[in-house]
Amino acid sequence: MRTRKKKWAAGVLTNNPRILRDGDISLPQQRPVHLELGCGKGRFIIETSRRHPDIHFVAVERDETILATAARRAEENGAGSLVFIHADVNDGLEFIKPGEISRLYINFCDPWSRKKKWAKRRLTHDTFLELYENLQIPEIFFKTDNRVLFESSLESFSRKNWVLSNVSLDLHASNFPENIMTEYEEKFSPQGPIYRLEAQARPAAITGGT
Amino acid sequence: MRTRKKKWAAGVLTNNPRILRDGDISLPQQRPVHLELGCGKGRFIIETSRRHPDIHFVAVERDETILATAARRAEENGAGSLVFIHADVNDGLEFIKPGEISRLYINFCDPWSRKKKWAKRRLTHDTFLELYENLQIPEIFFKTDNRVLFESSLESFSRKNWVLSNVSLDLHASNFPENIMTEYEEKFSPQGPIYRLEAQARPAAITGGT
Repeated sequence: MRTRKKKWAAGVLTNNPRILRDGDISLPQQRPVHLELGCGKGRFIIETSRRHPDIHFVAVERDETILATAARRAEENGAGSLVFIHADVNDGLEFIKPGEISRLYINFCDPWSRKKKWAKRRLTHDTFLELYENLQIPEIFFKTDNRVLFESSLESFSRKNWVLSNVSLDLHASNFPENIMTEYEEKFSPQGPIYRLEAQARPAAITGGT
Repeated sequence: MRTRKKKWAAGVLTNNPRILRDGDISLPQQRPVHLELGCGKGRFIIETSRRHPDIHFVAVERDETILATAARRAEENGAGSLVFIHADVNDGLEFIKPGEISRLYINFCDPWSRKKKWAKRRLTHDTFLELYENLQIPEIFFKTDNRVLFESSLESFSRKNWVLSNVSLDLHASNFPENIMTEYEEKFSPQGPIYRLEAQARPAAITGGT
């Protein structure tokens, strides 16, 4: 999603203490740390951080204006231990060291479904799963409304030897406790089912600390 | 599904050459052999056998009248190399030796979803997957319209280390080539999506011949 750049956003990015700046990015030293890739306007991660004050959260978002909105809302809503990185996913992951992240959230990422050759850009593509594995991330919570993306994700998680649990093929019809909706989810869920899964790295795949 | 016993069925069971009888059950000696558990009135397996004359098929069905219908239709429709076993699934699997079956079809099996403790009766439950693995069955093609069954199946296949491929969460909306519908599928697919997957045993799991 792209939005028009807004002037106030640059000010927020510079002054909001929750936003980590290039050259000064260090994750919370306390553990556990949970990471969201592509947090949008932050509704999900802000509410999650409020409910789990014992967990430290990091959220990556590439769109400046959207991130500024998320950071402002985090302040307004009294988010818990939550910081943001302004970067696209690839750059954002470069700040992560193996063993630092104990859970990864991927919510409604770009399905890259219009062209077949784009499939490798999906955040659940085999190459990304290998990257998460190298970063010793032991579990991933993933949801989407895109059927083709979810189908290919089931296959790639399986192929790369992650163990699936709590699979839901219609999240809002399931008895899933404590679902926290993203902005996108609230807007588009009336149009079709929301798919969700949890994936755990097999013990053999994760050798370091979590 | 239970049907009223019909008198003619017993005659078909005795006289139809495609039906293997207790004490005289031996699978086709040629390979490959594909097995369907719970073939119903046989529409799927009969059409599949017609399209693949190079494959040998075995279908198991416990209901006498339904099986008699399937066997009669197989004769009328010029099915390929196709034989039937009159047994419930557990008994039917006892006739299989390791390495004999190279593909298993499970189509719209009983979801056993009304009581939680019944989940272990599902043909995709962990204990059944272990059984198929012990029988060195290298791949399983599975479809159902039952969401809860499909969700739990995705988890059990993953947990037992099978590799998922060609996952479809809406088979009739997918570009899946050559789908052959079962009687049940034709009747109930307008009510909701048909789910389908293929699962391959990991090489480490299958040690014998396929």
